[in-house]
Amino acid sequence: MGTIHVLTRDELRSSVGLGQGELEAIQAVYPLISAGRAQMPPIMRIDVAEHHGEIDVKAAFLPGDDGIAVKVSAGFFDNPSRGLPSLGGLMLLFDARTGTPVAALFDGGYLTDLRTALAGAVATDHLAVPDASVIGIVGAGVQARLQLEAVRLVRPVARVQVWARDPARAQTFVDEVTRDLQLPTVVAPTVAEAARDAHVLLTTTPTEEPLVHVDALHPGLHITAIGSDAEHKQELDVEVVRAADVMVVDHRGQSARLGELRAPVAAGFDDAEAVELGEVVTGDHPGRRTTEQVTVCDLTGTGAQDTAIASLAYERCRHEGVGMVVDV
Amino acid sequence: MGTIHVLTRDELRSSVGLGQGELEAIQAVYPLISAGRAQMPPIMRIDVAEHHGEIDVKAAFLPGDDGIAVKVSAGFFDNPSRGLPSLGGLMLLFDARTGTPVAALFDGGYLTDLRTALAGAVATDHLAVPDASVIGIVGAGVQARLQLEAVRLVRPVARVQVWARDPARAQTFVDEVTRDLQLPTVVAPTVAEAARDAHVLLTTTPTEEPLVHVDALHPGLHITAIGSDAEHKQELDVEVVRAADVMVVDHRGQSARLGELRAPVAAGFDDAEAVELGEVVTGDHPGRRTTEQVTVCDLTGTGAQDTAIASLAYERCRHEGVGMVVDV
Repeated sequence: MGTIHVLTRDELRSSVGLGQGELEAIQAVYPLISAGRAQMPPIMRIDVAEHHGEIDVKAAFLPGDDGIAVKVSAGFFDNPSRGLPSLGGLMLLFDARTGTPVAALFDGGYLTDLRTALAGAVATDHLAVPDASVIGIVGAGVQARLQLEAVRLVRPVARVQVWARDPARAQTFVDEVTRDLQLPTVVAPTVAEAARDAHVLLTTTPTEEPLVHVDALHPGLHITAIGSDAEHKQELDVEVVRAADVMVVDHRGQSARLGELRAPVAAGFDDAEAVELGEVVTGDHPGRRTTEQVTVCDLTGTGAQDTAIASLAYERCRHEGVGMVVDV
Repeated sequence: MGTIHVLTRDELRSSVGLGQGELEAIQAVYPLISAGRAQMPPIMRIDVAEHHGEIDVKAAFLPGDDGIAVKVSAGFFDNPSRGLPSLGGLMLLFDARTGTPVAALFDGGYLTDLRTALAGAVATDHLAVPDASVIGIVGAGVQARLQLEAVRLVRPVARVQVWARDPARAQTFVDEVTRDLQLPTVVAPTVAEAARDAHVLLTTTPTEEPLVHVDALHPGLHITAIGSDAEHKQELDVEVVRAADVMVVDHRGQSARLGELRAPVAAGFDDAEAVELGEVVTGDHPGRRTTEQVTVCDLTGTGAQDTAIASLAYERCRHEGVGMVVDV
C-alpha cells in the first residue's frame, strides 16, 4: 500500500524543541484561526469512568498546509499508582491531498507540551512590555518550566518568582531553574507576591477555583493563562478579565466554552470585547498600546497548533532521516 | 516509554476474515449498543474541499472491554486519477485501563469492510427465514461481494441475482462469483427482478435516490440495507420501511440521522416503531414471527463494531506473533 514514518518520543525531542522555527510555525496558525480558515471540528471525548480516564481527539486542517493532524490524548488518573504517567497520547499525520497516513508520532504528549509552551511565547511576545524581565509563575509543573523556557525566546528574562499550592514543589522548581537555567528564582508566598513587580505572569494550573485576583494586577502587567481547557477549570477571577485593558484569546468560541472567558460571559461580560491572538499577530488589532496597560491572554489550545507542530516535526525527521519507515 | 504493535493490511488480512469467531465478536456488540452501554461520541469530520476529500474519526468504548479503538477513515475522490484508492484509513487501539496506545492497525479500510460484512450476516442470521437460499443483491462493489460471502456463514446460499446501475459491472460480479464461489449467479435487469423469489435482498450502494420500492416486496423477504451512512444517502423508499412488518436498525439515533429511518421519520414515521438489532440478538424482541413477514434491517455502521474487530485482530496478531513491535 505504501509507507508510514514511525517516530518515537526521543526522536521527536531530538528534532523539535523550543526554537525559533518552531515558534514561527506556531505563530503562523493564529491568523488562520482568526480568519476562520482553520478547520477544527469539536473535540471528541470518551469518558472511561471505570478507570478514571478519558480519551480526547482533536484534529485540524489548515488550508494550504500539506498535512492534517489527528491527535489522540489520554488522561488516566490512576496511572501513577501503576508507575505510568497520567497523560499520554500520539498524533497521526495525513497527506492533505490524498488522505493517506504519512506518519505516526508517538510523542506521549511531548508535542502538545511543546506547542503549548510556544503559544505562551507568542502571546508574551505580542503583549508584554518590550523589556519584560521579571516573570511570575503560578504552578510548578511541566508547563510552568516549559513556559518559562519559551518566554526566554522572546524576552530578556532576568528574575523569576514562583507560587505553587505545594510549597515543597515550588522549592524544587526554584532549585531546578536556578541550577539548569542560572536564573535568580524565588518562591513567592502568595499569587499576589508572584505577580508583584512582574512584567509577565504565567498561570499554568488545572485549578477549578480562581487563583489570580485583582490584587495581583498592576500597571504594565501581562498575564498568560494556560491552565483552563475544560468547562470546570478557571485560573483568573472574573474581575481580572473585566479589569484587563486588552483581553486576548487564542480562539474566542473555545475560550468562552472551555477557557477564561467562560465565567466572565456567564457573569455578563461581552465576549466580543475579547480580541483573538491572530488579530494581534497580523496587526489588525494593536494589542498593548502603552507600557501602563494590563493585558491578559487566555490560551485553551487548538488542533491547528497540533497540526502545525506535527507537520514541522515530520518534515524535519524526514529531512534528517530520523525514525523508521514501515511498509504497511 | 513502551511498545506499540504495528500491523499492516496484509498481516490483518491473514489474521481476521469472514469466520465464526469474527461473526460472534461483531454480534456481541449489538446488545451493548441497545442497552446504551457502548460509549460512542458523534463522528468527527474534516472536509478538505480543495482536494475533494474528507477525514472521519469514529471511536467507541465498550464497558468491560480491554481496548478502545479510534478509527480514522479517509475518502479522497480525486485519488483514482493518481492511481490511489479513494478510501483508506487506519485504526488505533488503546488500553482501556491506562489509555496507553497498544497497536496501530494500518488496515486501509479492510477492517471496516470486514465488520460491515459481518454485521450484514448478523442481521440475516436473526431476521431471514431459516432456509434462505436465494439472495438478491443491489450493487456490485466490494461490499456486495463481501456481504454475499458473509451471508454464507449463516444461510445455505444456492442462487444469486444481482442488479447494478452499470450492467457491465453486474456482469463482472456474476463472472467472478460464479468462478470464485461456484454459485449460480445471474444479472437481474431491475431491482425488483433481483428481489423476485429472493429470501434475502442485500442493498450495498451509496445512492441518494431510493432504488428499492414496494414492488420489490413479497412475503418472506428480508432486506438488509448497508449503503446509507450519511444525511444525503437513501436506498429504500419510505414506503418500503412503512410496509415492513419488522423494521430493525443497528442504532436508532444514527439510523434516524444518517440511515434508512431518516426519510421515513421526516415523512411522519415514528422511529420508536423501529427495533434495535441488539434487542433481537438478545431475544428481547422476537424479530421475525412468521415465514410470511417482511423484515428490514438498516445498518449504518458503528464505532462499537470497529472496537470489536480491532480488539480481536490485535489479540490474534499478538497471540500468533504477527506484526512488528516498535519501541516508542
